Amino acid sequence: MTTVITYGTFDLFHVGHVRLLKRLSELGDRLIVGISTDEFNDVKGKKSFCSYNERAEIVQSCRYVDEVFPENSWEQKVRDIEMYKADIFAIGDDWQGRFDDLNKYCKVLYLSRTENISTTQIKKKLSHLNKEKLDTIESSLHDVIEIVKAMSV
Amino acid sequence: MTTVITYGTFDLFHVGHVRLLKRLSELGDRLIVGISTDEFNDVKGKKSFCSYNERAEIVQSCRYVDEVFPENSWEQKVRDIEMYKADIFAIGDDWQGRFDDLNKYCKVLYLSRTENISTTQIKKKLSHLNKEKLDTIESSLHDVIEIVKAMSV
Repeated sequence: MTTVITYGTFDLFHVGHVRLLKRLSELGDRLIVGISTDEFNDVKGKKSFCSYNERAEIVQSCRYVDEVFPENSWEQKVRDIEMYKADIFAIGDDWQGRFDDLNKYCKVLYLSRTENISTTQIKKKLSHLNKEKLDTIESSLHDVIEIVKAMSV
Repeated sequence: MTTVITYGTFDLFHVGHVRLLKRLSELGDRLIVGISTDEFNDVKGKKSFCSYNERAEIVQSCRYVDEVFPENSWEQKVRDIEMYKADIFAIGDDWQGRFDDLNKYCKVLYLSRTENISTTQIKKKLSHLNKEKLDTIESSLHDVIEIVKAMSV
């Protein structure tokens, strides 16, 4: 049995996550997913929209995933690989080269990500719902500049 | 075999969706999910963040779901119930009473939704990410305009 292990935050679960998990599961017979805890994301300077418990529950409900566990630190990967008897460590290629030293313990693979889909982009697009307000502010600022220019002539 | 049928948009897939699908699947042996198409959402005056294809792919990847199909109209439900030989039509209780006439064709159930989790709330919270800052800027800008106006008199 080939066991694949991966890690991630999986915030705002989207189709890019689904496709990555499907491809990861196809690399072996069993897919184990480490989900970054909220505390570990603090260390990384990241803040997820959904809590660890919510993110873990969603990833666990994905048919391509066999087991999830908390990722609490950068250092735990060797222990996890040994504990889960992982044959393959695989992760998105936004991490290319970053985990090459795990080659001592198992095969390391970097998978290409789904283009144009990421949690960051979703957050960005949704936060642009405020665009109208930003446009109003920009317009007011332009007015002020014009007034000041006229005064300074 | 007991077949359960449900419908929804399932935009920005969240833990409330997962829990609802899990409970729906536990009502029978097979869960069939009608996903509102983008065109049907237009008719309903709704606009989803993710496309039909993305939403369908995510719901299909959920381990509690056996099959997904497109929901194109309000009228197709009787045909779907007959085609899939559904024994139970079940949906969130935000639709309470709305589908009682389907009782002629199968059992109709309304399930309580997960409190405080909905796509609408996620969209609202994400679009408010910068709200505080925007409010401060808008307020400062207003002050500046007033000062400049007073100076120009």
